[in-house]
Amino acid sequence: MLYTEIPTQRPVTPLLDGIDHPQQLRQLEQSQLAQVADELRQYILYAAGQSGGHFGANLGVIELTVALHYCFNTPQDRLVWDVGHQAYPHKVLTGRRERITTIRTKDGLAAFPAREESEFDTFGVGHSSTAISAGLGMALARRYQQDPCDVVAIVGDGAMTAGMAFEAMNDAVAHDADLIVVLNDNDMSISCSTGGFAKHLAAIWETGQFINLNEHGEAYVQPHPKWTYNSRLHQSATNAADNLFKAIGFDYFGPFDGHDVEQLAQVFQALKKRKGPRLVHIYTKKGKGFAPAEADPITYHAITKISPTATTTPTKKSGPKYSDVFGQWLCDQAAQDERLLAITPAMCEGSGMVQFAKQYPERFFDVAIAEQHAVTLAAGMACEGLKPVVAIYSTFLQRGYDQLIHDVALQNLDVTFGIDRAGLVGEDGPTHAGAYDYAYMRTVPNMVIMAPKDENECRQMLHTAYHYNGPTAVRYPRGVGTGAEIQQQMTALDIGKAEIVAEFNVDAEQQISILAFGSRVAASIEAAEQCANKHAIGVRVVNMRFVKPLDEQMIRELAESTQLFVTVEEHAVMAGAGSAVNEFLAHARILKPMLNLGLPDEFLHQATHQQMLQDCGLDSNGILASIEQAWFS
Amino acid sequence: MLYTEIPTQRPVTPLLDGIDHPQQLRQLEQSQLAQVADELRQYILYAAGQSGGHFGANLGVIELTVALHYCFNTPQDRLVWDVGHQAYPHKVLTGRRERITTIRTKDGLAAFPAREESEFDTFGVGHSSTAISAGLGMALARRYQQDPCDVVAIVGDGAMTAGMAFEAMNDAVAHDADLIVVLNDNDMSISCSTGGFAKHLAAIWETGQFINLNEHGEAYVQPHPKWTYNSRLHQSATNAADNLFKAIGFDYFGPFDGHDVEQLAQVFQALKKRKGPRLVHIYTKKGKGFAPAEADPITYHAITKISPTATTTPTKKSGPKYSDVFGQWLCDQAAQDERLLAITPAMCEGSGMVQFAKQYPERFFDVAIAEQHAVTLAAGMACEGLKPVVAIYSTFLQRGYDQLIHDVALQNLDVTFGIDRAGLVGEDGPTHAGAYDYAYMRTVPNMVIMAPKDENECRQMLHTAYHYNGPTAVRYPRGVGTGAEIQQQMTALDIGKAEIVAEFNVDAEQQISILAFGSRVAASIEAAEQCANKHAIGVRVVNMRFVKPLDEQMIRELAESTQLFVTVEEHAVMAGAGSAVNEFLAHARILKPMLNLGLPDEFLHQATHQQMLQDCGLDSNGILASIEQAWFS
Repeated sequence: MLYTEIPTQRPVTPLLDGIDHPQQLRQLEQSQLAQVADELRQYILYAAGQSGGHFGANLGVIELTVALHYCFNTPQDRLVWDVGHQAYPHKVLTGRRERITTIRTKDGLAAFPAREESEFDTFGVGHSSTAISAGLGMALARRYQQDPCDVVAIVGDGAMTAGMAFEAMNDAVAHDADLIVVLNDNDMSISCSTGGFAKHLAAIWETGQFINLNEHGEAYVQPHPKWTYNSRLHQSATNAADNLFKAIGFDYFGPFDGHDVEQLAQVFQALKKRKGPRLVHIYTKKGKGFAPAEADPITYHAITKISPTATTTPTKKSGPKYSDVFGQWLCDQAAQDERLLAITPAMCEGSGMVQFAKQYPERFFDVAIAEQHAVTLAAGMACEGLKPVVAIYSTFLQRGYDQLIHDVALQNLDVTFGIDRAGLVGEDGPTHAGAYDYAYMRTVPNMVIMAPKDENECRQMLHTAYHYNGPTAVRYPRGVGTGAEIQQQMTALDIGKAEIVAEFNVDAEQQISILAFGSRVAASIEAAEQCANKHAIGVRVVNMRFVKPLDEQMIRELAESTQLFVTVEEHAVMAGAGSAVNEFLAHARILKPMLNLGLPDEFLHQATHQQMLQDCGLDSNGILASIEQAWFS
Repeated sequence: MLYTEIPTQRPVTPLLDGIDHPQQLRQLEQSQLAQVADELRQYILYAAGQSGGHFGANLGVIELTVALHYCFNTPQDRLVWDVGHQAYPHKVLTGRRERITTIRTKDGLAAFPAREESEFDTFGVGHSSTAISAGLGMALARRYQQDPCDVVAIVGDGAMTAGMAFEAMNDAVAHDADLIVVLNDNDMSISCSTGGFAKHLAAIWETGQFINLNEHGEAYVQPHPKWTYNSRLHQSATNAADNLFKAIGFDYFGPFDGHDVEQLAQVFQALKKRKGPRLVHIYTKKGKGFAPAEADPITYHAITKISPTATTTPTKKSGPKYSDVFGQWLCDQAAQDERLLAITPAMCEGSGMVQFAKQYPERFFDVAIAEQHAVTLAAGMACEGLKPVVAIYSTFLQRGYDQLIHDVALQNLDVTFGIDRAGLVGEDGPTHAGAYDYAYMRTVPNMVIMAPKDENECRQMLHTAYHYNGPTAVRYPRGVGTGAEIQQQMTALDIGKAEIVAEFNVDAEQQISILAFGSRVAASIEAAEQCANKHAIGVRVVNMRFVKPLDEQMIRELAESTQLFVTVEEHAVMAGAGSAVNEFLAHARILKPMLNLGLPDEFLHQATHQQMLQDCGLDSNGILASIEQAWFS
């Protein structure tokens, strides 16, 4: 069925309602699976309307999910979902049907598979391309334990470009591991797939043949009987006669229609009769079964809930998204300097680069999900005198960390990092938190690290970073700015210079100095004002701007009249920006009470960004409370 | 010529002596190249005997290096050597002939290509698998600048298994980049090649055919005329009819005999007539031309100099290598617990695992150069209730950082990391320094991090880590231990408990507390004794043992009688272990002067390990001097 509207009333789903455990699914006839899939699709449409969240990918794997749980003896057999945002149907079929509408909310279901949530969630997956490695680990462990089971890793075509997937396939063949990889080819990752791999998939498709299995698990080649999805985005460029997966040593089957649930069930049953590394290539459509999403899968990657809850917080003054500020700066800087090139690892939309990609296609490099390569590619470009800008999420730069050190910083190359989603990320939960970048970057020589207090400063810092000749990072949060007016004129800041942004009760005898970093400046000012008014104490707030180099002179000068230092950052306290201040104070032999505020030493579960800040005591009330506890109690 | 001895007298090399710049090489006749190669081989043999250093890989690329510089217009054309320890012949041919014997010594030539050393060294490469990314960056930059040149990335078969190489090839095809990749297939990385990729290379070889180019750059298939190297280590397992490189979209040529310098020259000349991504597969022999190295390439991966200099430091009491301590522990623990599995990313010998691999082949997993995969593979094994141990160098764990966070620590999985080569690494220089692991690990929740004061404690800490149910790391230095007696009995330490290891002048009024981490405990004790004797002050030394969790109780108790705290670590001061102590002191509101000693905020050039420690003020004299400057001046 092709649906055109998201139902606001719960649909009638008699078969689905009887499935609280996949065992109940497995008791149905194979001929009933299509109905289960249809009911599941309707229910997912309804639930997504209630909760919001990832959308298109889930609609694309309805039939696959039904077939997998029908054929494999879950949870004893292991399903490992790669990039778990396609796991909503899996959650519904594994005992979480009624809770699915709580997904991505505080105390609700996690956005991704989570081991602590269900025994069916064999591996936590928020970042892509981990499933083959994890699945291989499980398969090898079970073989060693002489207790083998079927292990199936389900990987999207976008995730396959990450080198990690290749590393794992290479190793699976080394061990002749009993592992099934389902390549869920939906012709795109979040952005369009790019590169040789995507072209190769297109080439395979265009042969018009597929490799099927008979009921004994024997392979045979057939012309493709139905050519439902023949409009690949890409031209075939590679040689389809040379199959990549066979070359690396996998048995290859497909491509199959990923929406023919009965055929999928037959394929999986046949596959179980074979051993060794097996890859099943299926073709699915993102947004399948919902007409608007089929037509525009990028827009329907995720949706917001249909009816927001009544308890929305009053609208505060707020500006554009930081990612859009980045994107606008990128266009403006590019107009001024033709040496600017921009790189993204498959996050064109998320990083705000759509306009740049359109305006400067020859200067835009989407390298696919390939963070390691993205960073070193930039290093190579910088060697030729160009000025590459790498747009990357904080959590994904963790994948390019060695390259940041070894290829960029060690050679002191002129690469600018625009680090998005830094700090807490709300509903996406702990897998996507950008809580460690100050720590892992500031320990690296040659790095200059900035964090803006608002969207205008973000723009000016990007300009500053770009014009600094060496490796620089500007890290900014998820979501919207404070509403600060953005100056079109770009002005470079002095490297390593902080600014005092607020002073309350300047003449008071006692003074507290709050050294605030990035997103926490505004809340610090609010807290400072309240503190000053309430306690008749002097409080000043410094927008530190630079995590490295620190404005040591400013700290030294402030110290003369400071009774309590407070550092505030949206980053782990451990090894973070406040820790850098501590190091300087120790070095300068300045002995002052110090309160380091930041994220606690734990992985934080999803909630809204604001809730999480509140829970961590990093909103203005929390900052005030911490100061009061430290100084006035 | 096949040589059997390393010459101690400089050989006669008339052609080589005339080459101070490759331009002079390019003026020779093609028929003279074989003689140049022979002279270069003799000279490399001689020079390696004088300096020590990497050996087998350099002998393997003599003909390749001559042919590349003969055919390409270096340095205007770009050669990018992957894992630069094969770059000695390149250095000799590019103006550094007379300085090659200084390689890997203080103020001498760098162990790897280094941009600041020569314009011919286009990219610094110590870690593997970066060359295609960097070369692609250069090629795309030059295309954008409308000033194209030939870019050649030379990559070993071992380095090709790293996913980063695959990411870069995928992207090169996306851009139809004008890039030549030379796959230098010598049938092994440092350890044996493993996996589907290695098997695929064997399969290609065993077809008995190769793809040649005529002088116009047109391809044609030929039976292989001479089958010099037909004894591949591996059985063909994958389908040779499916060429991996063609599948991903490269033009593929070869395999060629990598020691036929004239044929190589013809191939490169012909390749220059083509455009787009091209891969040339050549087959070489590690140690080529030196009989003992051809017979035993693993032993001859690197050699020590023939005649050590006269000024050797007097022999101190010293124990086994830390890597051997690790290896012995691994065997002993495995004997006690069959849940133990061990993983290495291609560093079986370097990590001391040869005996384990022999004794427990079914529990030993060499995953090839694939650090990302290594970490997540361990996570998958841990999910099945096994207890994986990942042996990895500190500098290479940077490649698996996201996996450490996202796949291991976030799920609180029971994985033990044995982190070797932590701290300074002497002759290998800045690319291999393990200077950042405390910082990048301690900021991650759930991690337990230990550093042993000597080899016995290393063994006990590995035992402790192994029995702790969660992610743990034991980080130990390159080289040998202090000579401490190793207790065969393994005893678990209390998590987060430090020990006072020395107290001098206990009754003195003033007390200094040195909080020493790992390898710096012994030097701290020496410094403490000297300081106490010289200044009649009390000095005690704490072996902190745990970087995380810190022994806060110990610090709190010591603080009562401490006038000066000193932290000492072989790690960057920034965000390091001392910084963790600062954080606790701030949190506990303990105001004491603090001296944080560790590595400075710069990339340190090669020297001996001891020289480097001295230069950083981290030997006993340096520690004493810093204390004196801080406290007695």
